[in-house]
Amino acid sequence: MWKDLLPIGREAASGGYRRFAWTGADVDCREWFRAQAESRGLAYEVDRNGNQWAWLGDPAAEDAVVTGSHLDSVPDGGAFDGPLGVVSSFAALDELRSRGARPTRPLAIVNFGDEEGARFGLACVGSRLAAGQLTPEQAHALRDADGVGLAEAMERAGYDPEAIGPDPERLARIGAFVELHVEQGRALDLSGHPIGIASAIWPHGRWRFDFHGEANHAGTTRLEDRRDPMLTYANTVLAARKKARLAGALATFGKVSVEPNGVNAIPSLVRGWLDSRAADQETLDAVVAEIERAAVERGERDGVDVRMTRESFTPVVEFGHALRDELAALLGDAPVLPTGAGHDAGILSASVPTAMLFVRNPTGVSHSPAETAAEDDCLAGVTALADVLEGLACR
Amino acid sequence: MWKDLLPIGREAASGGYRRFAWTGADVDCREWFRAQAESRGLAYEVDRNGNQWAWLGDPAAEDAVVTGSHLDSVPDGGAFDGPLGVVSSFAALDELRSRGARPTRPLAIVNFGDEEGARFGLACVGSRLAAGQLTPEQAHALRDADGVGLAEAMERAGYDPEAIGPDPERLARIGAFVELHVEQGRALDLSGHPIGIASAIWPHGRWRFDFHGEANHAGTTRLEDRRDPMLTYANTVLAARKKARLAGALATFGKVSVEPNGVNAIPSLVRGWLDSRAADQETLDAVVAEIERAAVERGERDGVDVRMTRESFTPVVEFGHALRDELAALLGDAPVLPTGAGHDAGILSASVPTAMLFVRNPTGVSHSPAETAAEDDCLAGVTALADVLEGLACR
Repeated sequence: MWKDLLPIGREAASGGYRRFAWTGADVDCREWFRAQAESRGLAYEVDRNGNQWAWLGDPAAEDAVVTGSHLDSVPDGGAFDGPLGVVSSFAALDELRSRGARPTRPLAIVNFGDEEGARFGLACVGSRLAAGQLTPEQAHALRDADGVGLAEAMERAGYDPEAIGPDPERLARIGAFVELHVEQGRALDLSGHPIGIASAIWPHGRWRFDFHGEANHAGTTRLEDRRDPMLTYANTVLAARKKARLAGALATFGKVSVEPNGVNAIPSLVRGWLDSRAADQETLDAVVAEIERAAVERGERDGVDVRMTRESFTPVVEFGHALRDELAALLGDAPVLPTGAGHDAGILSASVPTAMLFVRNPTGVSHSPAETAAEDDCLAGVTALADVLEGLACR
Repeated sequence: MWKDLLPIGREAASGGYRRFAWTGADVDCREWFRAQAESRGLAYEVDRNGNQWAWLGDPAAEDAVVTGSHLDSVPDGGAFDGPLGVVSSFAALDELRSRGARPTRPLAIVNFGDEEGARFGLACVGSRLAAGQLTPEQAHALRDADGVGLAEAMERAGYDPEAIGPDPERLARIGAFVELHVEQGRALDLSGHPIGIASAIWPHGRWRFDFHGEANHAGTTRLEDRRDPMLTYANTVLAARKKARLAGALATFGKVSVEPNGVNAIPSLVRGWLDSRAADQETLDAVVAEIERAAVERGERDGVDVRMTRESFTPVVEFGHALRDELAALLGDAPVLPTGAGHDAGILSASVPTAMLFVRNPTGVSHSPAETAAEDDCLAGVTALADVLEGLACR
C-alpha cells in the first residue's frame, strides 16, 4: 500500500514531494485513495468540496467515527506529513478486521484536499470549506502563482468547483474525528515515547511584508542616494528571529520574491512572508506587532515604504478534553503535548469532537525530504489508532 | 526613429523594458536597427557574434571610427540605458550629413548583443566574444533560468551559434570607438554639465553566495534546532552594505533565489548574488573578502554552510588618454569623470582606442522604468557626438 504511494509526485533531484492541490500528482494520490477504498470493499465518495471518504458502515448514519489526514505536500515535502495518517488509517482498519472487531458505529477514512496550501497560499482549504470557515466566494478568489484560479484547477482535475461550500449535515453525522500525524518536532523523541496525544494547536498565521524602494543601477548609485528594500527586508528577518526568541515564540521568513531580481539592479520591491506562532494569542500578537514596528523603523532609515498584510490566521485550538481523555485511557502512558502546526483536525475541532495522535519523529525534521519516522514507530501508530478506533466504535 | 523603438519589449504593468538577448523583443530591436541602417543607405552587416553594424564608407577599410551601444535591457530597465547611444549615433550621422561633412575615414554604428547579461548572467557577451575575452566554449556553457543554452537561443532568433568567436581582424580595422551613454549617477547633474567624458570604469564583478541550511517545518521546529539560511543571508546583506560604506565602495544584493520558497518551510538553500565595485582593485578585493568572512562567521553561528563563487569580473578600465584628450579638446569644458558601470566600451578598450560620452541624468536613476534624461540634454549629446565624429573622421 505504502510503496504504491511513495513514487507519486516525487522530485528526482531533491527526493522531496510536490503534490500540490489539483495537480497531476494530487490526482494520482486521489486515484490511489480510491483504489485502496475499493480493494477493501469500502463505500467510496467525494464530498462537495473534493474531500475523499471511504466508509465501513452506512455513510448516512449518525455518530460516525472518522480518521484520516491529507495526501498533498509542501514544495519538496517529506513522505510522512499527511500520507502517514491516511496509510495508517487503512492499516488500522485492516488490523481491526484481523482482530475480528465488530464496529457498532459507522467508520470512515478521509483525505482532506489542499491541506498544505502550497499552491493557493491558504492552508486546509478542504476542511475550511466543509466547516464553513472559508466561503465559496473567498475560495473562488484564490489564485496560484501562474494566475490559475481554484475553480479552473478543480475542473482540470475532474472535480466540480460550483458545488463547493459548507457541509454542516455531513459534519453533524461525525461523532469523533481522530487524525494521526507524524510529529513535527522532537518532543516525543526527547521524552522517549513513540506515540503522543495532542493537547492544543498554537495560534498561527501568515503575514506578507511589502518593502517598496526604488529600482536603480547597482554599479553607479551612491549608497546615500539609494532606497534599497533588500536592506529593510534583511533587517526584518533578523528582527523577527530576535523578537520570537525573546518571547518564546516562532517566526520564520521562508518565502521571498524580488522585483526586478537582477544582479546589477537595486530592487524596487521585496516581498517577504512571515510565518509566526506562539503558545497563546497575546504573545503572538505582541511578537508580530514588534516585528512590524522594527520593519517600519528600519524602512524609515532606508527610505523604504513597509506594508504588512495578514494573509491567514488560525486561532488557538484546544482539543476537547472528553475525547482526549478517552484516548489517554485507551493508550496508557502516551504523553499529551501541544504543536505549532496547523491541521485539518484543528479546523474540524470547531464543529466536531476531535483529537490527534502523533508518531515520533527522531530528528524533528518535517516539510523536507529528510523527514522520517522509524518503521517500528509507524507500526506502533497503526496499533494505537486501531486501539482508539476499536475503543470508540466497537463498544 | 525613437518612437518606433519605444514600445518594443515594454511591460505594461511596470513601464519598464524586458529586452533580453535573443528573445522576441531583442529580435524586434534588431529589426529596428536594420531598418534604420537601410533607410539611410548604410551597408548593414551582422558579425560572427551577432553584433549589428551599419557602415558609411568601406567596412573593409582600415582606421574606422565606430560609435554605438546596445539595445538590450535589464529586467524592467529604462528606455535610455543602451538605446540612447544607438539612437544618438544615427542622429549624429544625420547631423553630419546635414552639416555637409565629408568623412575621410569609414564610419560605423554598432549594436552589441547581450550587453546587460540579464538572460545568461554574464554581461557584454557580444563584445567579450569579439575581443576574445570569452571563449566560444564558455559562451556555449551559458544557460538561462529555463535551462535554454546560448546556442539554442541564438538559433531560435535566426542567428548562427556555431560561428561565434574572436574577431581580431574586425577590431584591428577600428581606429577609434566612442560610446555615448546616459549617465547612471548624478555627477553631471551635481556639476551642472549636460555632457561628460569617461575617465575610467571601476573594477567590478558578481559573486554568488550559496547558503545551505536544512529545510524544516516553520511551525514546529524549535529555534535552537534550526539551520536557517535566510538568517545568514540577511546578515550578509547588511554586512555587505556596512563594509562597502566603510571602504567607499559599492555592494548590492539585488537578486535572490530560495528553495523551497514556501511560507511555512525553513529554506534548505538561499542563493544571493553580490554586485560589488570600487575605485581600485585592492579596495574591491578587500571589501569582497570582508563580506565573505562576515558570511562564513555568521554561517557558523546558524549551522549554515556558505560558499562564495565569482561569476564574473572586469578589471579597472582606464580609457586611453590620447583619444580622451582629443574628445576634451573637441567638446570644450565637458568634465571628465569615472563610472561604476560596465560597458562594451570597457571590453573594447583592451583592443581598440576607446572613449565614452555621458549624457546628464537628472535623478541618477538607471536600470529602472524611472530612468530619464531631458530632451535638451539628449540633443546636446547628439551634437557632441556629431562634433566628435566630425573631428575624428572628417579631418
